[in-house]
Amino acid sequence: MKRIDFTLYAITDRSFIKGMDIAEAVEIAIKNGVTVVQLREKDISSREFYEIALKVKEVTRKYNVPLIINDRVDIALAVDAEGVHVGPDDLPVGVVRRILGPDKIVGGSAYSVEEALKAEKEGADYIGAGSVFAQPVKPEAEVIGIEGVRKIKEAVNIPVVAIGGVNKTNAYEVILHSGVDGISAIAGIFDGDIEANTKDMLREIRRAFKERGK
Amino acid sequence: MKRIDFTLYAITDRSFIKGMDIAEAVEIAIKNGVTVVQLREKDISSREFYEIALKVKEVTRKYNVPLIINDRVDIALAVDAEGVHVGPDDLPVGVVRRILGPDKIVGGSAYSVEEALKAEKEGADYIGAGSVFAQPVKPEAEVIGIEGVRKIKEAVNIPVVAIGGVNKTNAYEVILHSGVDGISAIAGIFDGDIEANTKDMLREIRRAFKERGK
Ligand code: NI
Repeated sequence: MKRIDFTLYAITDRSFIKGMDIAEAVEIAIKNGVTVVQLREKDISSREFYEIALKVKEVTRKYNVPLIINDRVDIALAVDAEGVHVGPDDLPVGVVRRILGPDKIVGGSAYSVEEALKAEKEGADYIGAGSVFAQPVKPEAEVIGIEGVRKIKEAVNIPVVAIGGVNKTNAYEVILHSGVDGISAIAGIFDGDIEANTKDMLREIRRAFKERGK
Repeated sequence: MKRIDFTLYAITDRSFIKGMDIAEAVEIAIKNGVTVVQLREKDISSREFYEIALKVKEVTRKYNVPLIINDRVDIALAVDAEGVHVGPDDLPVGVVRRILGPDKIVGGSAYSVEEALKAEKEGADYIGAGSVFAQPVKPEAEVIGIEGVRKIKEAVNIPVVAIGGVNKTNAYEVILHSGVDGISAIAGIFDGDIEANTKDMLREIRRAFKERGK
């Protein structure tokens, strides 16, 4: 399960998902080409997180897409998710690797080469590098641009996904000039028409991969 | 480590712990007779919870007192705590037991005999039964009285600690009439003079144990 297709990595955010449950939204995204799903929940109880994760796991299992849980190693273990993604406010990458063992996927966030190298050294399987662009929903995030993402990609030997304000209008440029292995998106996928967002983004990513000769 | 002395089980609450850090407060409580420590944190990041838990674990390890983490199985694994306590909003007892295996302590909350039997069946090592009394800090908690706690104690074959509004003024009555194995307290220990609270409560509990012939 460690060999992952990072082309289009969707991160859930219930604030964008209206009128349907998260599992339904995830299913639309997967049907239209999302290759990895990260379930991200804040400000809910462990029991609620667990129950949502169980439902989402049913969908990802059905389509054989890896499910990554944001932050909560216990929820990942509880639903037998494929992995965990941790950022600066979460458990350190090395601690997560120790708990999960060698077979689960561990991802780390980085906005600098130094952080990315640290996460790689601690056992991360991939890096979420960003923020590429400024995001209205996350004004506190450090913006490193396509250039900052490219430096991270060049520094590490593990896959890198670009994150932060990437959508169908800029995914082509990000892939082409940063050299990353895929795009990670929240609003870019779940804000609005999930089917159209996913298809358009995937087309732009593939167009850039082709241009790069990947 | 499964053989626990549940006599006086302290649950941390930072809102009562002023002018010192949680590890210091826990050390005072342990020095004065607390036999189990539960670290309970809400509304902080996983990283902060982890860092506090590491500090508290240093103290509990020094005095050879078991450390139980409230809710977060991942934090317990990260700091190698002795166990986890889960309530109705947390992961189910059976899931926690499956993740932690047979050697860690798993505690469950119950306000009814039915819930207590369910937790026991799912693999709980002990029950936190209550609320014994109404608590201003937790107005939503179901109050079951000393009688409700006694029914739970009589129904299960695992240790029971009484929780909810128990302090030095009522611990004697609770122990004497409910037959429980110990008292669990938050405010009863950490609100005010921790040393005096702990000593007084322990004296009352022991007086009732003696009266009961335990
Ligand atoms: Ni260009």
